[in-house]
Amino acid sequence: MPFLNRTQRLLSRPSFHPVSLPLPFRRLFSVSHLQHNQPQSNANAPRVIFSGIQPTGIPHLGNYLGALSNWVQLQNTAGPSDELLFSIVGWHALTLPQHPQQLSEARMDMLAALLAIGIDPRRSIIFHQDDNPDHTELAWIFNCITPMGKLRRMTTWKSRLAASKNQGDDVDVDEAGLNVGLFAYPVLQAADILAYKATHVPVGDDQTQHLELCRVIADQFNRNFKAEQQLFPLPTQLNTPSKRILSLRDPTSKMSKSSPDSSSRILLTDSLSQISQKIRSAVTDSIPGINYDPVNRPGTANLLTILAACNNDEDVGETARRYGGKNHGALKKDLTEAVEEMLKGPRAEFEKLRMERAYLAQLAREGAEKARLKSEVTMREVRKRVGLS
Amino acid sequence: MPFLNRTQRLLSRPSFHPVSLPLPFRRLFSVSHLQHNQPQSNANAPRVIFSGIQPTGIPHLGNYLGALSNWVQLQNTAGPSDELLFSIVGWHALTLPQHPQQLSEARMDMLAALLAIGIDPRRSIIFHQDDNPDHTELAWIFNCITPMGKLRRMTTWKSRLAASKNQGDDVDVDEAGLNVGLFAYPVLQAADILAYKATHVPVGDDQTQHLELCRVIADQFNRNFKAEQQLFPLPTQLNTPSKRILSLRDPTSKMSKSSPDSSSRILLTDSLSQISQKIRSAVTDSIPGINYDPVNRPGTANLLTILAACNNDEDVGETARRYGGKNHGALKKDLTEAVEEMLKGPRAEFEKLRMERAYLAQLAREGAEKARLKSEVTMREVRKRVGLS
Repeated sequence: MPFLNRTQRLLSRPSFHPVSLPLPFRRLFSVSHLQHNQPQSNANAPRVIFSGIQPTGIPHLGNYLGALSNWVQLQNTAGPSDELLFSIVGWHALTLPQHPQQLSEARMDMLAALLAIGIDPRRSIIFHQDDNPDHTELAWIFNCITPMGKLRRMTTWKSRLAASKNQGDDVDVDEAGLNVGLFAYPVLQAADILAYKATHVPVGDDQTQHLELCRVIADQFNRNFKAEQQLFPLPTQLNTPSKRILSLRDPTSKMSKSSPDSSSRILLTDSLSQISQKIRSAVTDSIPGINYDPVNRPGTANLLTILAACNNDEDVGETARRYGGKNHGALKKDLTEAVEEMLKGPRAEFEKLRMERAYLAQLAREGAEKARLKSEVTMREVRKRVGLS
Repeated sequence: MPFLNRTQRLLSRPSFHPVSLPLPFRRLFSVSHLQHNQPQSNANAPRVIFSGIQPTGIPHLGNYLGALSNWVQLQNTAGPSDELLFSIVGWHALTLPQHPQQLSEARMDMLAALLAIGIDPRRSIIFHQDDNPDHTELAWIFNCITPMGKLRRMTTWKSRLAASKNQGDDVDVDEAGLNVGLFAYPVLQAADILAYKATHVPVGDDQTQHLELCRVIADQFNRNFKAEQQLFPLPTQLNTPSKRILSLRDPTSKMSKSSPDSSSRILLTDSLSQISQKIRSAVTDSIPGINYDPVNRPGTANLLTILAACNNDEDVGETARRYGGKNHGALKKDLTEAVEEMLKGPRAEFEKLRMERAYLAQLAREGAEKARLKSEVTMREVRKRVGLS
């Protein structure tokens, strides 16, 4: 299973010890962080790490540096007793309109991509959410203990609805066209997490309110259906250093799959010449020299952010200093090489894997089976506690 | 399997033919009725009949005459190609607070009661909703095509919420304390029905708006996810002659499990002496003689309604005429005998069955297995059409 070059470089020792973690990993797993966010659990107890990603198809650099590479890091730095589950959350994708044929392909492509970037099915449970009905069953039970008001206060459905309607301002978004799924998906998310009694959830800042709701639901269940032992842990957010990668064509917005301009994003499948062409045409500015100034020079800062991430997650200020006397041309040339170096292994693996449909289907079945074995234990207890057994 | 006496009397012939149906059955199944409510389907096509009941435990006379005896009638008058599914809908019970231990017993008792009154597991599929996760999976998918506004217009959650708060007036009920489950349960109901592509749903008038929503959801799915064949039928409401049985102690309200006065209701398990005592103490009026006048003599009218139902679903006016020259004492005496005659068979069977836990569990497993075999066919197609396969 090929890993990312930078991951390989960082994590070459099999018994990787937290004390010797390089800086970005230390930021992730420092004891002070765990103590801050996880008052209820023992920092040395085995963790159950759960995260999900929507089946958006071939990941772009934004998906990759924003979330997926963190998953690989988590997997490869986890303690031997830690469990990891990574789910492709197809049921969440349905909350906005989808083209069924494209969704079906994107679902398979995302699985291939996770494997290609280094999620190892022998170490982590990788599975399609929609292969495990325990998620929707638990979501229903959680629906029955979740007040409407709690969901109404979430802002995510408002911004997703605004985005889907191309309304810039989510303050003015009305609920016309809001479907029940988009409104209630934080409850399904809580079920995704708690079906495995996950203790740690690496998600971006935009999901903080959902994880807080997840804790509220877990706590409500524990209190409504008391027994000797509390059933659910209150999961902790793993504040992974989420890099916000911007569009190469419009550095005021995030790199996005939905932008009509395909040169605004670099895909995992892009060839060297496509990477080169897209970086060459990336919008920067006409200020001479290079410095890191996200406010006044967002395009340049974006290129520096990507380059720093490619260079073993180097500090971006450090990267910028090395280019102090150089120009955009030099930066773009080096960035092209660095991105190619980072992507070429996963790209080759992805192209190979996506041809192997039967193998992927087999891995998906095995992943779902492992996931179900875990969630079944939870669900047996849930059904007993609520009186449905 | 013992049937109700009146059912036995009516349905003694195995190949029961609609043309020779007595009046109440003709009212149910007349062609004009089917044509009126079912513009899309062929009146001669095999029907798939689905209905659900919450696990409220031992049924009382109101449950029995209001819904359950209709199920037995439907079963025993159905054509040989008709399929019938009767579900104990535990997930719906969770929308209001439950005592888990009581719910668990009520769940088993309701299964025993259905068998005892004559639902035949060799003819009908009897199963616990919560044994078939296809319901919650389909409900999630339906959530994603159901606008919030449609649910907000439902009145049932308002009245159930008002009832649970002992507020008489559901106009003033605010949404504080409304949980997502109680708000969204009509979507789960649509999934209950459509998982089996049910064509006919015997439900009371209070559920008409939910069945209309079910049709809207079916139609929306068919239009969003088109293929050569429409996936879902638009189910027809079977307007069974629903008898509204009133409290014996307060004939202005329905006979109810939740009334604190246990003499207000007759349970399937009541002995002859309990039936006799409860009917003797039933509130009537001091007007001499007997006539059927539900407005001015609700208590008397209620007793006549029950007696008519016990007498082969006789026309209640006819019953009243026979008591024209008699008094309440005579009416109560005959009613006691008629109720005892109607309940004694099912009561004995129920008491026997509820001791046979292993047998009930086995029947529940078999019922769930049959239900799943049917719903799996639907779900495979659903997943394919939405792009999650």
